[in-house]
Amino acid sequence: MEHGITAVITKLVFQLFIIIFLAKLAGEACERYLKQPSVLGELGVGMVIGPYALGGLITLPMIGVLFGVPHGAETSSIPVSIELYAVAQIAAVILLFVAGLETDLKKFIRYAGPAAVIAIGGVVFPFLLGAWAAVLFGVAESFKDPLALFMGAIMTATSVGITARVLTDIGKLDTPEGVTILGAAVVDDVVGILILAIVVSMAHSGSFSLAKVGMIAVKAVGFWLGLTVIGILLSKKISKFLLGFKSSGAIVAIALALAFFASALAEMFGLAMIIGAYSMGLALSNSPIAETLEEKMAPVYHALVPVFFVVMGMLVDFAAMRSLLTFGLVVSGLAIVSKVFGCGVPAMGVGFNTRGSFRVGIGMLPRGEVALIVAGVGLTTGVIGTDIFGVSIMMTLITTIMAPMILVPLFSKGGEGRRRKGIGSNEGLTGG
Amino acid sequence: MEHGITAVITKLVFQLFIIIFLAKLAGEACERYLKQPSVLGELGVGMVIGPYALGGLITLPMIGVLFGVPHGAETSSIPVSIELYAVAQIAAVILLFVAGLETDLKKFIRYAGPAAVIAIGGVVFPFLLGAWAAVLFGVAESFKDPLALFMGAIMTATSVGITARVLTDIGKLDTPEGVTILGAAVVDDVVGILILAIVVSMAHSGSFSLAKVGMIAVKAVGFWLGLTVIGILLSKKISKFLLGFKSSGAIVAIALALAFFASALAEMFGLAMIIGAYSMGLALSNSPIAETLEEKMAPVYHALVPVFFVVMGMLVDFAAMRSLLTFGLVVSGLAIVSKVFGCGVPAMGVGFNTRGSFRVGIGMLPRGEVALIVAGVGLTTGVIGTDIFGVSIMMTLITTIMAPMILVPLFSKGGEGRRRKGIGSNEGLTGG
Repeated sequence: MEHGITAVITKLVFQLFIIIFLAKLAGEACERYLKQPSVLGELGVGMVIGPYALGGLITLPMIGVLFGVPHGAETSSIPVSIELYAVAQIAAVILLFVAGLETDLKKFIRYAGPAAVIAIGGVVFPFLLGAWAAVLFGVAESFKDPLALFMGAIMTATSVGITARVLTDIGKLDTPEGVTILGAAVVDDVVGILILAIVVSMAHSGSFSLAKVGMIAVKAVGFWLGLTVIGILLSKKISKFLLGFKSSGAIVAIALALAFFASALAEMFGLAMIIGAYSMGLALSNSPIAETLEEKMAPVYHALVPVFFVVMGMLVDFAAMRSLLTFGLVVSGLAIVSKVFGCGVPAMGVGFNTRGSFRVGIGMLPRGEVALIVAGVGLTTGVIGTDIFGVSIMMTLITTIMAPMILVPLFSKGGEGRRRKGIGSNEGLTGG
Repeated sequence: MEHGITAVITKLVFQLFIIIFLAKLAGEACERYLKQPSVLGELGVGMVIGPYALGGLITLPMIGVLFGVPHGAETSSIPVSIELYAVAQIAAVILLFVAGLETDLKKFIRYAGPAAVIAIGGVVFPFLLGAWAAVLFGVAESFKDPLALFMGAIMTATSVGITARVLTDIGKLDTPEGVTILGAAVVDDVVGILILAIVVSMAHSGSFSLAKVGMIAVKAVGFWLGLTVIGILLSKKISKFLLGFKSSGAIVAIALALAFFASALAEMFGLAMIIGAYSMGLALSNSPIAETLEEKMAPVYHALVPVFFVVMGMLVDFAAMRSLLTFGLVVSGLAIVSKVFGCGVPAMGVGFNTRGSFRVGIGMLPRGEVALIVAGVGLTTGVIGTDIFGVSIMMTLITTIMAPMILVPLFSKGGEGRRRKGIGSNEGLTGG
């Protein structure tokens, strides 16, 4: 078939075969032999078959280079084709929509206060330490250098995606720590995206206007709160509307369409898509159709979500990381310390014991899609180079690999994470 | 977010929201009030919101023109973005994979003979009449003109996708007529793609080599038979391998990955992707995991397959159709007559009665993805212009709308379609 679009789609379909097949094999190996969540296997597959490793070397007849930067992709710093990246992003939307659906809304509201306190600690410390490291290593000239601000911004946002996936894999999404971690991760994603918006506008104009920063903040927070509250208020009506359909499959299809709508809306308001998807899932989590949706979405989730994590692994450029290895290791160390203490200490203040606080701190470790988005924007706007981009990937990678490795034994030993007895108790939780 | 790739993906996600939401509303309206299969509503939605209609006029903040030819899409004659087209093609793969899974393999083999006979009649007549019409209207100079051959090729291939969808919608996929129609549609897709390969190679080289034609034919038919037979032989082993996985969702994910593999392989061998997907589904249809797969694939199917049909509707360019309206109507008429008689008469010869033969003939009417692929290749290679492309779309559209409108009452009246009594009887069926 001598048809450009057909060749592109054939390549995509072949790539999806390779990605899903190997992801499931590696995931199975992780769970069965390494007793680790399968997400690590998926990231590993991505690193091995990505454009910077084997995938850039393997050439197939008709397909060409199996994974590699396609021509015409100069608009982007992301080294995979736009079609594959689009599938991965749709997978991220589904991941967060399902994570929202599986969240216990009542628990989420109960832990919203503590989550906010923990999120603030988990944003302020990493941001300051990241910017400081950039100045210390001479990478940035001063704290006011956009590069220092970017390095700080990259450090802030815990990956809701990876966190939700790890907690789901080990069945702890619904514990007090799980709900708190996810709530805090959502809040610090919102804050992280906010910081990004501010840093980008500063890097562009070269000036810092408090009024402008305030505007961006009000818009982003207002949108997120508004979407979630409106969603919750309308969820009964949405359920009733969907249950009225006679044609098969309408409920799942339209619910998914609404998740897409919320995702696009979030992006249009300057937030990340995944935040909209999570809000829509959260809004529907308390509705009569939540259980049906969870059950019907499961196969889509299992087939598609690994694509997101494999593609994340593919973004790792080993060569770019080499030149700044020491800086990268220091940044990674600071990323760990700043989150564990930045989140753990506030956690102790809002009712968790040492064990629970440590779980929360470790659960907040993994940076992921937002760090990659921030780093990508830095690269596109020319504020950071491929070396700092590599450092960001390294930090993302180390924190992502460490979190499940520590979190799994921390939870599997068992034991209450809260100081007060009784899961239902509400005392000491309103510290935020 | 000032990031090209993010804007592209935000637009895609918003488009998917619009497409899935409206498709389900229109589908429901079709089923409930018009008593027609929902696929017609989906095609209608595509025509209304496509780039040549409302979608080309509506402009949204951040999103831009809702549906329109994106810049950088000069490689293709398809007026939607490559990401959206990719999602639609993945949906087509899923459609055919599920159609294969739902096919009763034993029945398929039993009806393979009759199906082949019917397919041949349904290829020869439409090809000759299409080429003849092109010469008659002075569109082509002679029968040897590549344009005449293209017009013939566009007429040949029944859409397996639309046919399978209509038969599934009315619950008749598993009747003798249903199995025969689907079998014949698959065979004539293979033959249609074969004709395309030959016509394209003639248009390129300007010469006609019988050895070359033979080579292409042997390769294509050999590949298809080989894939199906190997798939059937390995299906028990594949089942056992998949049932060995402990991690959740592995069965569906890997089965889907295998469908992607077969699709890419088919395309690499010069066939269409959907043929590979159907073969893989057919191979697994008799395995122990078939029922699980059918059940788990249903939500993916219901959410994604409408995207394919809406995108098909979007390709209709009303303006391009205007200039050749008479020719278009004649071609559409010939497309109907040639399939109804070309398939109906052989059907009578292989054991169907008048009612059954008419059902088979009407079931073979809808042209779809293959006709569009052939027309698209013609446009890209410069053999046909946008006017003939418009005529092809018109013919595809009319046959696609007519088939379910006639087929639904033909089946709902009931009555045996075979001459011999007893569904299990094998007599008179080995005419092929």
